[in-house]
Amino acid sequence: MNITNKKYEARSKEEQQFLDNYNPGEYAPIAVTVDAVVFGVIKNASDNYRKLDSQSLKILLIKRDEYPYKNWYTLPGGFVSPEETLEDTLERTLESKTGLKEIYSEQLYTFGGINRDPRMRIISCAYISLIDAGKARINGAEWFDIEEAKKITLAFDHNLIIEEAIKRIRGKINYTDIVFNMMPTEFTISQLQEVYEIILGEKLLAPAFRRTIADKIVDTGKMTSNAGHRPSRIFIRK
Amino acid sequence: MNITNKKYEARSKEEQQFLDNYNPGEYAPIAVTVDAVVFGVIKNASDNYRKLDSQSLKILLIKRDEYPYKNWYTLPGGFVSPEETLEDTLERTLESKTGLKEIYSEQLYTFGGINRDPRMRIISCAYISLIDAGKARINGAEWFDIEEAKKITLAFDHNLIIEEAIKRIRGKINYTDIVFNMMPTEFTISQLQEVYEIILGEKLLAPAFRRTIADKIVDTGKMTSNAGHRPSRIFIRK
Repeated sequence: MNITNKKYEARSKEEQQFLDNYNPGEYAPIAVTVDAVVFGVIKNASDNYRKLDSQSLKILLIKRDEYPYKNWYTLPGGFVSPEETLEDTLERTLESKTGLKEIYSEQLYTFGGINRDPRMRIISCAYISLIDAGKARINGAEWFDIEEAKKITLAFDHNLIIEEAIKRIRGKINYTDIVFNMMPTEFTISQLQEVYEIILGEKLLAPAFRRTIADKIVDTGKMTSNAGHRPSRIFIRK
Repeated sequence: MNITNKKYEARSKEEQQFLDNYNPGEYAPIAVTVDAVVFGVIKNASDNYRKLDSQSLKILLIKRDEYPYKNWYTLPGGFVSPEETLEDTLERTLESKTGLKEIYSEQLYTFGGINRDPRMRIISCAYISLIDAGKARINGAEWFDIEEAKKITLAFDHNLIIEEAIKRIRGKINYTDIVFNMMPTEFTISQLQEVYEIILGEKLLAPAFRRTIADKIVDTGKMTSNAGHRPSRIFIRK
């Protein structure tokens, strides 16, 4: 989206004067933060050599090392500084926690409850970020299974933010290509189905699933090779 | 959505001390505003007595009476004050401009460009609001046709906000009941079709349209009466 960053020029002397005399410090300070619900698909090494590695959908959480909510888990996030757009703050936060740039992100919702932070009035613009976890270098953060993360009482209103984020990707998975932002470049249909099932929270029938995603993927002609199980076709996103 | 408004209690003396010493004034002030893209369907008195009144989809704009952008048109909006949630600010703004409470609204996007306002760093949380224009008492605002509003250069980044708002309702009209928030309680199918056509920016075929909305409406059994044209069935939202 196009963002307005060009400087405004006053149209008259009176207006310039008005602006020169405008004192932002007169208003009660409000701070703005950006918080990210980072989803990633993690490969679990299979304990059965006959099976393909299974995968699980995880959320990135950080243990706070300062007040308030010291030692509580929280979403990665940070204060928007005066010279940063919301997207800049998001990028800075995500890069420092995952080592990744150009992460697929979309705005989720802006949370403006009055007492959501005990330090001061803080309004948080929350994002959903989807990463190919295989490429991330996690730094000061930990991956949690979604179901596990939902059970932890997080700092601030972050449980609510996660709840909304899960609703959002669940609602979008079938009519967008959002899921491919979490997949490695090459994948099998059953790996893709596994991710859909985790997000939707239900088992899908393989034939119906194949029809749903047929238009979104391309067969590479390659096959997986693993002594233990039957080879599977490898696909990429169309 | 559930919003956290309960006060935080410090878990230790050290934490209470930290909070007592926290000085929000040390940070560069950021202000937060709420801006609303208010859509309404307005009946145009027909100049042909044989035709039903036609309708058009309009947006509510306000002429600014102070700097910056004095005398420019702008979206209705206001500053979020410390004791208000985003939704409180929205409700206050909309009530003062339309006389209506409990307006259907949803968050659109939060705009955080650095120079979007010349007074100070102002981040705006934009909402879409849909009203039954027949019930509104417009106060200090004017209705503009969508196409007309798009041609006016508005204050701040409000052209961009309107553009995003139109994309959003256009994207949602077919898979949600969003449109009924703009309709009067009773309507004919052709009146409803007219609103769909304005939002989508294209003519629809009547039989296909009837199939699309069949599940969403109920026949009241009543008919319109107007000496000039054939009576039409009157429907309500299911």
